[in-house]
Amino acid sequence: MTVGDNPHRLDEALRAALARSDLVLVSGGLGPTTDDITRERLAEVTGRPLIVDPVGLSRIESIFRGRGAAMPPANRKQAMLPEGAVPIANPVGTAPGVLLEVGRQAVILLPGPPAELVPMTRDSVIPYLIDRLERSGERAVIRSRVLRLVGIGESAAEARIADIMAGQGNPTVAPLTGEGEVQFRITAKARGPEAADALIAPVEAAIRNRLADHVYGRDDDTLEGVIGGLLIKRGARLAVAESCTGGGVAWRLTRVPGSSAYFERGLVVYSNQAKAELAGVAPELLERHGAVSREVAAALADGVMRRAGTDFGLGVTGIAGPGGGSDCKPVGLVFFGLAGGGPTATFERRFAGDRSEVKRRAVAYALELLWGRLRA
Amino acid sequence: MTVGDNPHRLDEALRAALARSDLVLVSGGLGPTTDDITRERLAEVTGRPLIVDPVGLSRIESIFRGRGAAMPPANRKQAMLPEGAVPIANPVGTAPGVLLEVGRQAVILLPGPPAELVPMTRDSVIPYLIDRLERSGERAVIRSRVLRLVGIGESAAEARIADIMAGQGNPTVAPLTGEGEVQFRITAKARGPEAADALIAPVEAAIRNRLADHVYGRDDDTLEGVIGGLLIKRGARLAVAESCTGGGVAWRLTRVPGSSAYFERGLVVYSNQAKAELAGVAPELLERHGAVSREVAAALADGVMRRAGTDFGLGVTGIAGPGGGSDCKPVGLVFFGLAGGGPTATFERRFAGDRSEVKRRAVAYALELLWGRLRA
Repeated sequence: MTVGDNPHRLDEALRAALARSDLVLVSGGLGPTTDDITRERLAEVTGRPLIVDPVGLSRIESIFRGRGAAMPPANRKQAMLPEGAVPIANPVGTAPGVLLEVGRQAVILLPGPPAELVPMTRDSVIPYLIDRLERSGERAVIRSRVLRLVGIGESAAEARIADIMAGQGNPTVAPLTGEGEVQFRITAKARGPEAADALIAPVEAAIRNRLADHVYGRDDDTLEGVIGGLLIKRGARLAVAESCTGGGVAWRLTRVPGSSAYFERGLVVYSNQAKAELAGVAPELLERHGAVSREVAAALADGVMRRAGTDFGLGVTGIAGPGGGSDCKPVGLVFFGLAGGGPTATFERRFAGDRSEVKRRAVAYALELLWGRLRA
Repeated sequence: MTVGDNPHRLDEALRAALARSDLVLVSGGLGPTTDDITRERLAEVTGRPLIVDPVGLSRIESIFRGRGAAMPPANRKQAMLPEGAVPIANPVGTAPGVLLEVGRQAVILLPGPPAELVPMTRDSVIPYLIDRLERSGERAVIRSRVLRLVGIGESAAEARIADIMAGQGNPTVAPLTGEGEVQFRITAKARGPEAADALIAPVEAAIRNRLADHVYGRDDDTLEGVIGGLLIKRGARLAVAESCTGGGVAWRLTRVPGSSAYFERGLVVYSNQAKAELAGVAPELLERHGAVSREVAAALADGVMRRAGTDFGLGVTGIAGPGGGSDCKPVGLVFFGLAGGGPTATFERRFAGDRSEVKRRAVAYALELLWGRLRA
């Protein structure tokens, strides 16, 4: 449930959640401003007064001292806890989380910003929940494996494994839709983690067998991370020259920790001058075929690979829109060039959607092409 | 409310929504796969049989013919509608939306993918709702204006306008938290749009007056869009050379339609060789101060501006982590150089968070610096 900073509706949501669930997770509304009311509403709904946690207060004051500032009075309320609750450490911001156990129920309040929410969930909430589960004597565990696919749509992928999905009971197989990729989640319930994994393994193998050309990874794998691993395995380096994707390919490739080991450079060659100067694209080529062409995509890939002295080179040029399209080169048309590890190849795609959608899809397709060549 | 592909829980959610709201908006679950059950559940909950819409079916078949394929049997159900419902055109995908009016209530089903959801909402749902409101004789309108700020935190910004926020009734002022920026939403209720705008105007002026150095735009403005507008007004062009942000600055700047008019090139200079070759950073400078230094940030800004022949140049170099940090140059340390329109300036910041957080914050700060110089 998503609920605004409104006391009445927040109370209703908390009461509804407490009426049906053993565990209630709430994120957001723990900041210092007047509309941050989650702490107060939990106190009200559970009938417990708010009490200052003196240790928490000292910590917030010391964060502000570290910034060379006095703590604004508004931040004092971040050290308040409903009676009987305990704080959850926040390694990043000033707002501690809150854990309140009420009988066999638990309510957990966490800050909204992902930079705080994610580490607090990982470092405090999940260990607490595992511990609580073990103390309760509950033995059944649910384990999931996610397989990640590119280069195929959801219904085509599902059609190939229809019999596997139809016959399921435990484990179950469910399609998820990710950003520019298809995912299948295999979920098993068993008395322990090993038993659950043993149920998952044959189903995973069967799906991988049917969709071998498309499964690039599993669980927390990312396409850029898998590409990085393949480059490291080959001891190879990569350079990219992109036009319409505007740095998006470089941005995704460099999301991977340690990517500086294989990512040598990226060029965002928006102007023709930049295409010629930085990637050595011949001005005649630009004139004859236009900047958005199969020939220029190949020249960008070859040129950036040669200039950077890398083993692989990628070129992208296209029309992201909304302007710049024509009858023969419509908005969404993108050419890709791939150099290294074999003859330079080119690819042509037309992507639907608005400017940001075209850019995003072109970035995803560029990574798909890189993966296809590297895994070969 | 968010609910999984589970018939029982989806029915509960639909019943709860219909019990309290005149308008129920549902997104997701209109696809062709077996877990796409929203259409069926709405039919069940409202007691209306599903009927094939022959026009919708022909359209789906023709989409597949256009792709040179036969329609998979699974897609047939996308042309089904609960009796009495009408389809909502989907300009992008195969799944039409569904509008079902039940007495004075309306239920609207839309596909989940934003590329389909957003245009369908804009082109069909909002016009329908406006029309419905007008037919109902309801005259009161609610209008909002969002002011967008950078370079200041939420509590500091709120402290500066505390009296404006405290005295409010109509309009109200509420802080929102955006990605790397602070937002204030001013909302007024009146008998018509002009009357609402007249209530908003003086409050907007008062907030702008207090926070003039930080308000970069309003409503749908983006920082990169405002930067683009300032560059166009000056007839100036820009080039960027970024290391740790990995193309993120170029990616955001080129999100703006028409950015090719002023964005000349972007360099993602991950290796020292690339920094020297592409931006002309002197190897001695890299050796003496290290790649992550104030001096190299300035040299990147100057170098890319000179080489590209642009009016402004931006340089970014830092340590995104998780590796590569040291005692004197910790993870999160980023230097920025800004050239053009005045003496070359450098800035040093240390960002908290993991690799992607550091990258994102460094990109946001780079844009903030550009805006600061361009509006001067």
